[in-house]
Amino acid sequence: MKKRIVIVGVGLIGGTIARGFKQNNDVLVIGIGRRIENLQIAKSLNIIDAFSTDFSSEATKADYIIFATPVKQSLKYMAELATLPTKAGLVVSDAGSTKQEIVMAANQLFANRDIYFIGGHPMAGSHKTGAIASRIDLFENAFYILTPTENVPDEVVETFKERLSGLKARFIQLDAKQHDEITAMVSHLPHILAASLVLQTKDFSEAFPLAKSMAAGGFRDMTRIASSDARMWTDILMSNQSIILSRLDEWQVEMTKVKQMIQRSEFDELMAFFNEAKAFRKTMDIHQTGAIPAFYDLFVDVPDEPGVIHNVLGLFVPDDLSIINIKIIETEATGALQLSFKNYEDLSRAKALIEAQTDYDYYEM
Amino acid sequence: MKKRIVIVGVGLIGGTIARGFKQNNDVLVIGIGRRIENLQIAKSLNIIDAFSTDFSSEATKADYIIFATPVKQSLKYMAELATLPTKAGLVVSDAGSTKQEIVMAANQLFANRDIYFIGGHPMAGSHKTGAIASRIDLFENAFYILTPTENVPDEVVETFKERLSGLKARFIQLDAKQHDEITAMVSHLPHILAASLVLQTKDFSEAFPLAKSMAAGGFRDMTRIASSDARMWTDILMSNQSIILSRLDEWQVEMTKVKQMIQRSEFDELMAFFNEAKAFRKTMDIHQTGAIPAFYDLFVDVPDEPGVIHNVLGLFVPDDLSIINIKIIETEATGALQLSFKNYEDLSRAKALIEAQTDYDYYEM
Repeated sequence: MKKRIVIVGVGLIGGTIARGFKQNNDVLVIGIGRRIENLQIAKSLNIIDAFSTDFSSEATKADYIIFATPVKQSLKYMAELATLPTKAGLVVSDAGSTKQEIVMAANQLFANRDIYFIGGHPMAGSHKTGAIASRIDLFENAFYILTPTENVPDEVVETFKERLSGLKARFIQLDAKQHDEITAMVSHLPHILAASLVLQTKDFSEAFPLAKSMAAGGFRDMTRIASSDARMWTDILMSNQSIILSRLDEWQVEMTKVKQMIQRSEFDELMAFFNEAKAFRKTMDIHQTGAIPAFYDLFVDVPDEPGVIHNVLGLFVPDDLSIINIKIIETEATGALQLSFKNYEDLSRAKALIEAQTDYDYYEM
Repeated sequence: MKKRIVIVGVGLIGGTIARGFKQNNDVLVIGIGRRIENLQIAKSLNIIDAFSTDFSSEATKADYIIFATPVKQSLKYMAELATLPTKAGLVVSDAGSTKQEIVMAANQLFANRDIYFIGGHPMAGSHKTGAIASRIDLFENAFYILTPTENVPDEVVETFKERLSGLKARFIQLDAKQHDEITAMVSHLPHILAASLVLQTKDFSEAFPLAKSMAAGGFRDMTRIASSDARMWTDILMSNQSIILSRLDEWQVEMTKVKQMIQRSEFDELMAFFNEAKAFRKTMDIHQTGAIPAFYDLFVDVPDEPGVIHNVLGLFVPDDLSIINIKIIETEATGALQLSFKNYEDLSRAKALIEAQTDYDYYEM
C-alpha cells in the first residue's frame, strides 16, 4: 500500500518537497491548492500524482501532510486538521520561515492526538515562483531545519529525513525557539535594516536628489534583499515579533555605541570596531549558499573585449573543470574576473591553465 | 615648457590620476612618496616621468599638485604647502572620500594666495592596491566629484577636467558639504550598518554558535562592505563626523518607527514599509557601477554541467555581443545564469540566440 503524501500549496517550495518524496516509489503524492491550473501543470510535469481542492477529505487519508503555505495559512489548515479523524501516526510538517508559533500551535492542537508534528524550514529559494520552477536540487546542500515537537520519537524524524533524502539537503534538528532566534539575527533583522536604509535614502533624496544616482555597488549589495516579497516579510515579522524586537533592541544599543565613538572621536575604538567586524566576517561560513564549504576564489585581470570570458572559461573545458560562481568585478572597463571553485585543487588547476595559456595576471583570495 | 604635475601618493588612485594626466604630451608627471621601491616601479611602468621624496622642492616648481593620500595626510601637506613659495596659478586637488574638511582647510590655508583648490573624489576603486594596479580606465564612467573653492574661476575647473579627460570619468561639480551629506547617506552610513550587523552577530553567536553557519546569501551581500579597510573608514568617519552623526540620528528615528510598527502588529504599515522600499529601490540608478546606465538582465536556466557557461557565452561570440556582467544565481546545482547587458538591444539579440540555439528557459528582469 503506497503512503499518501499530501502537499498543501504546490508552489516552488511545495513542488520541490513533492519531488523529494517522489524519489521513492512507494508514495502517492497528492497536491492541494486553490488554483486548479497550477495543480494541473504540476501533475502534467509529474511533480504530483494527483490533486484536489478538498483538503479535509485528503487529510483523513494521509500518512504525511506538508504545509508549504504561509505560516498564518498553515495555522488555519492545522486548526481544521485537529477537528478531523486522521490516520494513526500521521506526520505533519511545514515549510515556513518561522517555527516557534507553528510548533506551539501544533503542541496545543494535536495534544492527545496520534499526530507527529515536525516543523520544517528549507533554507533556500529562488527568484522564480510556482510549481513549474520547482526542482529536485533546489535545496541541495542547503540547511533544512527540522523542529519536531517533544512527543515525536527520533525514528519518526529519521524516517522523515530518509523520505526526503533525495533533496540532498542538510537536515539539522533545532529547538523552534532557537531557530527563530538565529533567523531573526541573520535574516529577519538584516531585511529590516535593508528596507530601512532604502527608505531613509528615499526621504533624504527629496532634499538631495543626486543621492539616487550616487549610490553605488556597496549600497546596491546592502539593499538587494529590500527587493524581496513584502507580504512574505510582513508575515515573518508578525510571526516572530518578540524575538525580532529583542534583536532590534540590541541593534539600538549597538547603534548608540557607534554614535558615541564617533561623537567622542574615539579613533582607536573605531579602528577596532571595523577591524573586529572584518575579522569576524572572515570566520563565518558566509561564502556559501546553503552549506557548500567556503569557495576558493581566483581573480583574473582580463581586458574588456567581447568573448574574453568565453575564452577564459574555454581553457577549463578540456579539463572538465567546474566553476562554482563567476563574477565581473567593478566597472565594465576594468574587468577583473572573479572565479569561485569548489576546492583548492580546482583553483590550482585553473591557475595552471591560465598561467600556461594566457598572459593575464591573477590573484588568489 | 611642459606643465609640471606633482602627484603625492602614487598608489592605485594616484597612479590612475597620473595616467590620466599623461594622456597629454605637454606634461611632466612627478611622483612623490615615501616608498622608493613603489616609485621606481611606477616610473618603470611609465605611470610617472620622475619621482622624488622631497615634497617641498617639487611643490615650488609645480603647476598642478594632486594629493592622493588620506585626508589627514593631505591636510598636513597642504599646511606645508601654504608656507612655500609657489608658482602663480598653481592648481591643487586631492582624491579623498570626504570634501568639506579639506575645502575648509584650503580656504584658510590658501587665502590671499594665487592657488586654486579643486577638491576631487573619483568614486571608483578596486580590491587591489599600489601603482601597479592603477589603470587608465579605472574611473571610466564613474562619478568624479569636483568641489572647487569659491575663488576658483570656471575656466580653471574646465582646464582641469580637460587635462583628465582621458580618464573618461563623469565629472560632477558639487558643493563640498552637499558631497559629504550625500556620501554619508549612500556610503558612510551603510558601512557603519554593515560592520555593526557583523559585530552584533558576533556577540549573538556566543550564545548561538550556529548563527555563524546559518547566515546565507542575503547576510553575505549586506555585510560585504564590512570587509573594507578599517583605517580608511575610520579616517572617513573622523573627517565627516557631524554629518554622519545626523544620518545616524535619522537612522535611530527610522529604527524606532519600525520597532513600533512591529510592536503594535501594524500589518498594513509593515506591508507599506516593505513595498515602498522595494519600489523606491527600483527607481534608483542602482544597477550601475559609476554612471553606466542601468543594466538589462537576462536570467537563463542552465543545467549544472561543466562548460555550460562557456557554451552560452560562445553563442554570443560570432555576434560580437558583449556582456556587462555575469553571475550564477543560487546554489551550485540550480544554476540560473544572470547575464547583464548594456542596452535592451543587446539583451534582445542574446535572447534570440539562446532561443534559436538552446532549449534553456530564460527570464527578463
